[in-house]
Amino acid sequence: MSFTQFNPQGHLRHLITLEGLGAPLLTTLLDRADALLRPRGAAPARNQALAGVTVGNLFTEPSTRTRASFELAGKRLGADVVNLEIQLSSRVKGETMLDTIYTLQAMGVDLFVIRDAEAGVHEYVAGHVQDHVSILSAGESHLSHPTQGLLDALTLRQHCGGFAGRTVTIVGDLRHSRVARSAYHALTTLGIGELRLCGPAPLMPPAGEFHRARRCTTLNEGLEGTDVVMMLRIQKERMADALIPERADYHAQWGLTPERLTLARPDCLVMHPGPMNRSVEIDSTVADGPQSAIQRQVTNGVAVRMAVLEHIAAGRLRHV
Amino acid sequence: MSFTQFNPQGHLRHLITLEGLGAPLLTTLLDRADALLRPRGAAPARNQALAGVTVGNLFTEPSTRTRASFELAGKRLGADVVNLEIQLSSRVKGETMLDTIYTLQAMGVDLFVIRDAEAGVHEYVAGHVQDHVSILSAGESHLSHPTQGLLDALTLRQHCGGFAGRTVTIVGDLRHSRVARSAYHALTTLGIGELRLCGPAPLMPPAGEFHRARRCTTLNEGLEGTDVVMMLRIQKERMADALIPERADYHAQWGLTPERLTLARPDCLVMHPGPMNRSVEIDSTVADGPQSAIQRQVTNGVAVRMAVLEHIAAGRLRHV
Amino acid sequence: MSFTQFNPQGHLRHLITLEGLGAPLLTTLLDRADALLRPRGAAPARNQALAGVTVGNLFTEPSTRTRASFELAGKRLGADVVNLEIQLSSRVKGETMLDTIYTLQAMGVDLFVIRDAEAGVHEYVAGHVQDHVSILSAGESHLSHPTQGLLDALTLRQHCGGFAGRTVTIVGDLRHSRVARSAYHALTTLGIGELRLCGPAPLMPPAGEFHRARRCTTLNEGLEGTDVVMMLRIQKERMADALIPERADYHAQWGLTPERLTLARPDCLVMHPGPMNRSVEIDSTVADGPQSAIQRQVTNGVAVRMAVLEHIAAGRLRHV
Repeated sequence: MSFTQFNPQGHLRHLITLEGLGAPLLTTLLDRADALLRPRGAAPARNQALAGVTVGNLFTEPSTRTRASFELAGKRLGADVVNLEIQLSSRVKGETMLDTIYTLQAMGVDLFVIRDAEAGVHEYVAGHVQDHVSILSAGESHLSHPTQGLLDALTLRQHCGGFAGRTVTIVGDLRHSRVARSAYHALTTLGIGELRLCGPAPLMPPAGEFHRARRCTTLNEGLEGTDVVMMLRIQKERMADALIPERADYHAQWGLTPERLTLARPDCLVMHPGPMNRSVEIDSTVADGPQSAIQRQVTNGVAVRMAVLEHIAAGRLRHV
Repeated sequence: MSFTQFNPQGHLRHLITLEGLGAPLLTTLLDRADALLRPRGAAPARNQALAGVTVGNLFTEPSTRTRASFELAGKRLGADVVNLEIQLSSRVKGETMLDTIYTLQAMGVDLFVIRDAEAGVHEYVAGHVQDHVSILSAGESHLSHPTQGLLDALTLRQHCGGFAGRTVTIVGDLRHSRVARSAYHALTTLGIGELRLCGPAPLMPPAGEFHRARRCTTLNEGLEGTDVVMMLRIQKERMADALIPERADYHAQWGLTPERLTLARPDCLVMHPGPMNRSVEIDSTVADGPQSAIQRQVTNGVAVRMAVLEHIAAGRLRHV
Repeated sequence: MSFTQFNPQGHLRHLITLEGLGAPLLTTLLDRADALLRPRGAAPARNQALAGVTVGNLFTEPSTRTRASFELAGKRLGADVVNLEIQLSSRVKGETMLDTIYTLQAMGVDLFVIRDAEAGVHEYVAGHVQDHVSILSAGESHLSHPTQGLLDALTLRQHCGGFAGRTVTIVGDLRHSRVARSAYHALTTLGIGELRLCGPAPLMPPAGEFHRARRCTTLNEGLEGTDVVMMLRIQKERMADALIPERADYHAQWGLTPERLTLARPDCLVMHPGPMNRSVEIDSTVADGPQSAIQRQVTNGVAVRMAVLEHIAAGRLRHV
C-alpha cells in the first residue's frame, strides 16, 4: 500500500495496523509499556508526556472498556481528553465524515482514537488530517486492533521471556477477528516459533490470510504442547446465522475446559481479549484459574496505550 | 453478617451501608465534611488526597445528580475520574458482572462508585475485588444510600447543633426508600431523640424494620413539635400501582403545606433528597421558604462525599 | 427589557445575547480571543484563569461540537468541567427546570453553559441563580448563539482588518437562524458597512427584524461585490415542510458554487457555521477551497469561548 504510518522523519505517526511495523519498533513499545507497569494497588505511572496535547476518543458506544483504557492512558500522561460518541462511518458521505474530523482538528484535537466497524475509515481519515495530527485505531472492522495485538504480545513476553521457539494457539472465530489479525502481525514479526489456528471451518480465515500459521482441525491438535492459548470471543450472531452450532455444541467442540488445557504445556498461559462468554468458549475454572492472564492483559492494555501515545507524541511535528 | 466494611487494620474500606458503623466514625466524617465547606460563591475546597487514585463512577443513567456530585468530589481531591454508563445487575450472570469489575480494576480503578437497583450487588462486588480496591454505594435498591444518610445527618447537625433530644419526622414512601433507611441508621447511631415515620399504610415499612422509630398514623401527629421534617419523593409508579391515592389526594393527606408546617417547631427544618414533586409531597412555598434546607443538603452532599473519599483513600492498603 | 447581562459593577455576568452589548466590549473579547490563538499544531494556549471554577455543560445531545468546544475552552483555563445531558425545557414545569439548576448550583457549578431549543430558558434561569453564578448560552431556539456571533465577527476581522466599509452577505434560512441573528447583532454593533440577506422568501425573517440589513431577492444580487459570504445550514425539515424546493432546486437557486462566488470580490471570504450540507447550500469546491474560512471559524470558536469564560470569571462576585 502507498499509505504509510510513518512521518517523513521515519517516526511512527499513526497506528492503524501492526502490519509492516518492524520488530525493533514493536520491541521499543513493549519495553516502554513494561517500564510503565506498577505493582498491583500502587499508584499508576504518570508523567506529562502529553501535556498540551488533546486526545479525542471517538467511539460509537459510550462505555466500551477500550474507551476507558485509552481515556485513562491519556489522562495519566497529562493530555486533555474529550470523549465523543460518534460513529464516523455512519455519516452519509465521505465528506461529512471528514467534516467531523476537520471540525475537531480545528478545535485542537491532535490525536484521534477511533473505533469503527467499517474497513478503511482510519486510513482514509489519516490521509486527510494535517501533518501534526495522528490517528490511532481502537478497532477497525474485522481487520485490525493494533493496541490489542501489542498487549497480547507483551503478556506473552512477560510469561515466556521471548518469542523464539514458543508456540501460540488462537482458537475460535478467526475469520471475523481483528484481535487475531493484530496478534498474528505482532507475533510473526517478533519471531514466534509456531502460530496455530483452530476453530469451526466456517469461521476459519480465507486461504490467503495468516499464511505463516498452521491450521489445525481439532482443538486437541491445536492445544497439544502449546505455550499460550488465546481464546476468541464467539459472537452470538454467528450462531444465529447458523454458521456454527449452538452454544452447548460449540462448547463441546471448541470450549476451553480444564481437562483440555492439560494437553498444553503445564504452564500454558490462557488469554482472552474480553468480554468472555463463560461456559461457551471458556470455562470459568480456566478463566479464573492460575494459568489465566486475562486481567493482566487488561492491565497491560493501559500500559501499551500509554507507550503508544508517548511514542507518537514524541515524534509529532510541532510548529511552534 | 459476615461481610465487613473494614479492612484488617480496622479502617473503613467500603461504604455500602451505614448499618453497623459507630458514632465516632460517623462524627469524624461529618466533622471533616463540615471543614470542607466554603461560603457560597467561594472557590471550593481542593486538595490532592486522591492524587494517583482512579475513581470509576458506574451509573445506569448518564446524568444523575449523584453521579455529578461524586464526580466533582473526586476531581476536587485530585483523582482521575472515569464515568461509565453500566448497569451491573443487568448483566446476564454474576460472573459477567464481576468481569466488568475485574476489567476496570485491572485498568487501575481503585474506588468504584456504584448505583444499582438490585439488592446485594455492592456487597457481592466488594467480596471479590482486590484488597486495595473499595466499593462505595451511590444507592442500592430500596436498602441503602449511605452518603445521603450522612448528608442528611450533617444538615440536621448544622441546624440543631446535635442529635440528643431532637425529633425528626420522615414522611412518605418509607417502604421503598433507601434514603429513609440510611437516615434511620445514621440518626439512631448518632443518638437522635425521637424518630417518627408517617405515610400511607401500604407504603409504611414492614413491622420488623425501623424498630427504634415511632410510627404515626397522620401527618399532623408526625409533625407536632418536630425539629426536622424529611419529605420523601413519591414515585408516580406507586400511584399507577394503586398502592396510594392519586396526586391530589396524596397531597391532601401527606403533602407538606405551610399551614401544616406550623404544627412543627417554629424553626423546624425542611429536608427533601430531591428531585421533588412539587405540589405533590411538598408545596413550593415550603420548598423555597426560609425553613428549607434542600439546597444545603446538595452542597453538604459534595462535602460528605469528599470526606468519605478522603477517609477511605487514607486507609487504603497500598503495595508500593 | 429589564433583564441585564451585567452585574451591579457593570461587568458582563451572563452572555445570553449579543444584543445590547457595546462595540468596546465586543472588541475587548475579540482582541483577547486573537491573543489566545496559536499556530496550527502548536500547543494550545493555557492558563489558570478558571482555577477553582466549575463549569457545567448542559446539552440535550451528548456529542455536539459546540459542547466539545466549550469543554476544551474550560479545561484549557483550568476549570473543573462536568457534562450533563439535560434538556432543561423538557422538564414538566418551570419549577422543575429551576430545581435542576439549583441542585447543580448547590454542588458548586458556577458557570452554566446551556443549549436549549426553547426561547427564554436562558434568561429565565439567569433571573433565578445566585449572584456569583453566570449563564452562557450555547444556542437558544432560533434567537441567539452569542459565541457563534463573536467567532464570526472575529473571523471576518482577521480577514478584512476591520468592519467599516465592508459588505457581508448572509444566505439561506434566515428566519430560523440563531447564527444569523447573533451575527447581525455583532456586525452591526461593530460598524459593518453593509449587511445583505438573501434566501427563499418563506425563509426570510419577518419584516420587523434585521432592520439595518438590505434584503436581496436573488443570490446574485446578494453576492455582487461582497467581502464575506456566510452560508447558513438548510434544515431538511424545511424541505419536508414544503417551505422550500427540494435539494437540487435549492442548490440551483441558493447554493454557493465556484461560478457564483466569482460575482463577489476576488478575495471574498466564505463562512459556514457547520455542519454543512455539501452540494445543497455549498459546493465542496468552495467549502474546501482557498477562500473558505470554515475551519478557521471552529478554531476561533474555542478562542472566543476562552475569552468569554475568562472575562466573565474575572468579573465574578466572589464571597471569600
